[in-house]
Formats: sequence, structure tokens, C-alpha cells
Amino acid sequence: MSGGKGLDDRQAGPEHRHGEKGGVELTGDLLSGVSLPAAVVFEGALVHNLAWMQRFAEAHGARLAPHGKTTMAPALFHRQLAAGAWGITLATAPQCRAAFAHGVTRLLLANQLIGEANMAIVAELIEAGAHVYCVVDSIANVSQLGRYFAARGLRLQVLIELGVEGGRCGCRDHDEVMALAELIDSEQALVLAGLEGYEGVVHGNDPESRVRGYAWQLVEVAQALDHDGLFESPAPIITASGSAWYDVIAQVFAEARLGEHFVPVLRPGCYVVHDHGIYRDAQRGLLARRPDLDRGLRPALEVFAQVQSLPEPGLAVIALGKRDIAFDQLPEPLRRYREGGRAGAVLSVEGWRVTRLMDQHAFVRLPMDDHEAGERWDEIRVGDIVAFGASHPCLTFDKWRQLLLVDDALQVKESLQTCF
Amino acid sequence: MSGGKGLDDRQAGPEHRHGEKGGVELTGDLLSGVSLPAAVVFEGALVHNLAWMQRFAEAHGARLAPHGKTTMAPALFHRQLAAGAWGITLATAPQCRAAFAHGVTRLLLANQLIGEANMAIVAELIEAGAHVYCVVDSIANVSQLGRYFAARGLRLQVLIELGVEGGRCGCRDHDEVMALAELIDSEQALVLAGLEGYEGVVHGNDPESRVRGYAWQLVEVAQALDHDGLFESPAPIITASGSAWYDVIAQVFAEARLGEHFVPVLRPGCYVVHDHGIYRDAQRGLLARRPDLDRGLRPALEVFAQVQSLPEPGLAVIALGKRDIAFDQLPEPLRRYREGGRAGAVLSVEGWRVTRLMDQHAFVRLPMDDHEAGERWDEIRVGDIVAFGASHPCLTFDKWRQLLLVDDALQVKESLQTCF
Repeated sequence: MSGGKGLDDRQAGPEHRHGEKGGVELTGDLLSGVSLPAAVVFEGALVHNLAWMQRFAEAHGARLAPHGKTTMAPALFHRQLAAGAWGITLATAPQCRAAFAHGVTRLLLANQLIGEANMAIVAELIEAGAHVYCVVDSIANVSQLGRYFAARGLRLQVLIELGVEGGRCGCRDHDEVMALAELIDSEQALVLAGLEGYEGVVHGNDPESRVRGYAWQLVEVAQALDHDGLFESPAPIITASGSAWYDVIAQVFAEARLGEHFVPVLRPGCYVVHDHGIYRDAQRGLLARRPDLDRGLRPALEVFAQVQSLPEPGLAVIALGKRDIAFDQLPEPLRRYREGGRAGAVLSVEGWRVTRLMDQHAFVRLPMDDHEAGERWDEIRVGDIVAFGASHPCLTFDKWRQLLLVDDALQVKESLQTCF
Repeated sequence: MSGGKGLDDRQAGPEHRHGEKGGVELTGDLLSGVSLPAAVVFEGALVHNLAWMQRFAEAHGARLAPHGKTTMAPALFHRQLAAGAWGITLATAPQCRAAFAHGVTRLLLANQLIGEANMAIVAELIEAGAHVYCVVDSIANVSQLGRYFAARGLRLQVLIELGVEGGRCGCRDHDEVMALAELIDSEQALVLAGLEGYEGVVHGNDPESRVRGYAWQLVEVAQALDHDGLFESPAPIITASGSAWYDVIAQVFAEARLGEHFVPVLRPGCYVVHDHGIYRDAQRGLLARRPDLDRGLRPALEVFAQVQSLPEPGLAVIALGKRDIAFDQLPEPLRRYREGGRAGAVLSVEGWRVTRLMDQHAFVRLPMDDHEAGERWDEIRVGDIVAFGASHPCLTFDKWRQLLLVDDALQVKESLQTCF
């Protein structure tokens, strides 16, 4: 029985139902006729990002398994695979089920598989022909998985997770990894298929050198496992990287010439739409480290919402809330349009600042300091459409059952269903 | 065209599809066989809360229009209406559409209706027979609505919003309300049907007396509108109240004997499942103000998740993240069970403290200070199931397409579909 995630894999048919009377509408102008707020993906930036990251991975001799939890949008999985991705990374068993239901056959569950109901989901995927890998870091979990999959008459491919002291999951040192590998070796139902890590939880001074050190540790542990003949698969996977330090991981894996014997896999997720917050900041660091990489990723995800009320001088209340957009950081007003206007007729949001976000409302402080600003205030109208950027795309995607793919003229090209 | 909210009103049929192979399953034991994490509503507490709040409203001579945005769960709307609710309050036009699609016919949109696409949604609901009320606070919006609904040949019932200085939406004073009422009077397509307020944005020292003062201001402005013959409907609505100060609003409305001429409407939303955070705190204040009210509401919403890793002494990583539970405040561990165990066999979480929440993981610090605590640490197992409470139920509901209604024995009775 399902706990309520990814339930719509069967319901969201290819006909793109919109819940609107009259049924299917796949075109529309974002500035007139689309119910706002709406989450929007710009196709130009999306296409750029897909190609950029695939090129990056290939240039470093690595495979790309984009983390699908970011978007949980099968149409984006398909674009990632079409661009050359090796598989899709997921965070939970229901996410794996949803991806497989939409045609993704190589699934990297970069997480421990816990609980018999979740094991049952993965068992059914394996029986249906999926190539699933999951992660282990404890004797207890290895025993649970070994027992469960043996009883099902199946073999499960697992990667040992190497963590860091003070980090998240994962074995804390070399010896722990080796002991766990021996145990896996003794479990008939488990196949040790590789080593996994996540550098996003490495913290402290000089994070770059710490991440580099961690990447080298992954290489050394993988080589030790290989040396002792503990990998059962002929081309073991070594995988790491979130969306902030993937360049350092890729560089170490390339320097170690991992690709000659292993399958190095990178797993960034947020790159596909990038962001206007933490990943924009992370990219500044990346481009400073790697001046050879031109331009970088472009933000592709915005949320469009309307001015709902102008109740006091200097205050605009926008029909946009915590239900609509990520709020790890407060959203950033980017541009403004008149309802029914043209995409090219961009109005200013200079000096606008979101000060508070409620469930369904954003408070925006408007510049009111001088006469010029006073004029600007008068010129804003109830109904004006404001494009917002946010930090952390994962937490915007999960607020929508459908996002709108638009072109630069703000014409809706396609609806992107999600299956959270 | 829809912006992506409430899209599943037509997809979620009465058969409660679960996305599971094999189709419908409406029973199950939460401690074995249910994929976790899962959001859970306890039926006992739910039934108590439904009856408690209905009784409260009736005892104060008020109607109840529970705010549906909290849950967006039609099965809960139906229970609220069956308990005696007058209608359902919603925050957006797509939410109104979703509620109407599930049989709710009296819809109080306690928000400005902005944008032609949203007006079109409401127009279609009116054409289909819905009784819709929305809120206005500006000349600009009144003109937009008047023009739009005149062109559609429809009449829209509006309530003027009275706000507070430094607050959110709403007219800022008596004169502004009266001027707006005159304008509405001149718009053939608009019917002035009442006055609306929201005391949840009243802030400052001595909030109780400020909220009380604001409630009296609502009463006086409504009486002035009535005196000047500006209400078009024979029994104008006066409505206010969120989930924290509804007692003060109800008391003032009762003291003013509003029910003799007006229809007083309360709109709390979170009461239906209460919470383990801000509304628990608010209820302490309420029960101190009103010792005559026995017991109060009970928390009914929890999220069940499993211990995923025990990588270091004193640290448990739980498979529970920002994708699963509200995080205005960090979630609170309530109880623990063994997977496959009985609901009565509750294990301790004494001293457990969530220190960080990532997208799919929670970090829990375990008590390790003494030998006794050390024993406790050894006794925790990977796979143990932990029930968590959270603050702000709206932001837990919107993370799930389905929640599980359970009895005290943790048996699943029903799945509650949501239509965010």
C-alpha cells in the first residue's frame, strides 16, 4: 500500500488533462488567459542546461544520472535521457516506481532502501525489468535486504555509501566499508555493484579541499574493494555529486582515470533549471575554480503571480505564497508585465523586495524614498504580473502538479506533469 | 488554461487509485505493509475536532465556513459539511473549482479575485450553480470585476475587505470602505453581499485587545454600510477569523448580536487536524481566555517515517524531509514503534531532537549523556518507525496527494485525496 507519493503515475495520461472545463489546452499566452500563479520553465534555458551538463559529464569521462527528485517531471526525465543521460537518480522507492512507470529503466536510488513496503516496490520494479541500484551503510539494513530479496527469489544491486564524520548517512571509514562488503558478499540476494558518496554534507573550512579529499577517499576505497575482489559486477559504479560541487568530483574522478575500470557517475539534479539562490551562488564558485568552463547554467524556473492589492503606499500584496514557491530564502522579483501585455514590454521591479511570505500571499516593499519612486508606485496596477525567482528548485517543483514550459515570447508550449 | 493547481479534481475518482500494481487497497496496518513516510490523520481526534468547532460556532450564533485551503481534501470538506458547516472557505479560484467539482456548492473565496483567467473560473462556477462570494479592497479590482462579469452577463457577490494599517490586504479605514461600497453599488454586475476581515495580521502589544478592537470595528463598519442601504443582499455576511483568535471574533460577534440581522461566519481552517506547534500554542491562550471551553482541539495529523541510518553514536538519520512535512518549525518526534509491531507497543523518543531537515532526510540528535541513555541508543534499530508532529498543518497537507485516515490501532481506514 502506498504512503501517498508518486500516486499519479497512472492518472496523468498523455492527454495532459488540465482539470478545466472543455478539456485539453496545450497553448496559451502566459500574460493573458493562464490562471496565475503558475510555475514556468523557460525552454531556451532548459535546453541549454541539458546540453551543458551532458557535455560537462562527457568531457570528464563520466556518466550522468541526473537526480530526478528535483523535478519528478517525467517529461524532463525523457529530455535528460534523450540528451545522453545514463539513468535517473531517485531518492525514494515511490519515486523509482513513478520514474519506471514513465519509461525510465535504469534507476539509481541514491538512498537506503528501508521498510518492507518500500522493498516490495523495488522488488516489483526488478521483476518488471528495471535496473535498480540502491545504497547501503549498515549491517542491519544489509541483513534486512538480504533476507527480503532472498525470500522474493531476487537479487538486488547495492552500492556501499561512504559518508563523512558529522555528515549524513554512510559508513564513516575504510574499515567499516570493507566489513560491510564482506557481509554483502555472504548475502546471496545482494550484488555489490559499486560505491556511493555525497559530498554535499562535507562542511568546514576550505570546503573545496575537503570535497577534493573526500572524492579521493572514494577513489581509494573503491580501488581497495576492487583489489580485494569484493565487487561482484564487472564494471563497478562509483558515484557522487550534488548540484554544487560536481566539478570537483568530476575532476578527481577524471584525474584518477576511474573510467578505465569503473563507471563514474555524476548525479546533479538542480542543474536542469538552475536557480536564483544557492545554486547561482555555487556556480559563481564553480566558474571561479574552472575558468575554462564558459558561461555555465542559466536559471530556467520562475513563478508568475499577480499584484492582488496595493493597500498602502509602498506595499504590494502579491497572490503568491508558500504554497507556490520555495521559501528557504525569500523569492526575488525579476520582472513585471501588464496583464494582457506583450512579453517584450517589461516593466520595472527595481527596488522591490519581498519581506514576508504567507501561505497564499507575498508582501513586497516598494521603493518610496523619492519623488521618482513615488511615480513608480502610482504606475503599478492591481493585476500586474510579476515573475519571481527562488532558491532551491526542488522545493518549488514539489508545489505543482503541472508546470508550464514556455518560450521567450511567454507562449505555453507544453505542460510538464509532476509525480511527487 | 490552468496554472497547475487543483488539477486532479477529475482524475481522483471515487475508486481511490493508489498507483500500486493491483489497484485498490483501502486497508492496511501502518506498522507493516505501508510505504513510509506517510502522512496520517487520526480519525478519533478528527471526529472530536469537527464536532468541537461546529459546537463552538453554534454556541456563538455563528455559521462555520472552514478554510479549505488547509487540507484541500474533499473527503474532509464532506465531513465538515456533514457536521453542519455553512460552506467552505477557499483562497484561490482553482481551489474553488476543485471544491465545487467535489460537490461543495457554497464557496467563500476569502481573497481578491485577480486576473481574467481566475475570473473565468469563477464565472464558470456561477454558471454551473455555485454560490460564490469573493473579496474586494480596491477601486481597480472592483472596476475589473464589474467589467468582466458584465461582459459575461453574470452577477458576482462580493464582500468588502476591511484590513488594518501595516497588515495585508483590505481597505484601511471606514471612509475607504464606504467609498468602495458606493462604487460597487454603481456596478450592475456586482452585488455587495457583506464585509470580510482577517484578524490574523493584527499585530502589536496586547494582541487580544487589538483583535477585539478590530472585531468591533468590523461590526461598526457593517452597521454603517447597512444603515446607508449599501448591502444589496437581505442578510449580509460578516466574516472573520483564522485559527488562532476565532474565540475573540466569535465573542464580539455574539455580544453585538450580529446574528439578528447579519450572517456571522467564522473561517478557521487548521482546527480540523490542529497541530503540534503554533496552533497548540494559540490554543493555550484560548483556553486561558475561555476556561468555560473544556479540553479544546486535539492534534490529529502526524507523519510516520523510518530510521534510515544510525551512522554515529547519538545520530539517527530519518527518511523524512522537507518534501514530507511542514518545516516552519522543525518537526517533533512523538513516539516510536518497531516495524511490524503492534500499535500498543510504543517505544521511547525521550530526548530525541530534530536538528536539521533536508529535502528527504531528518537529522535527529539522540540522548547520549549517560549510561542509561547509551543503552537506549543501542536499542534503536534501522527500520524503526517514528511518528512526528509538526507546526502549521497547511504546509504538511500540501506535500501529499493522499493522506491515510487511521484508527487508534493504526489500521488504515480510508485514503484522503488532496487536490492542491
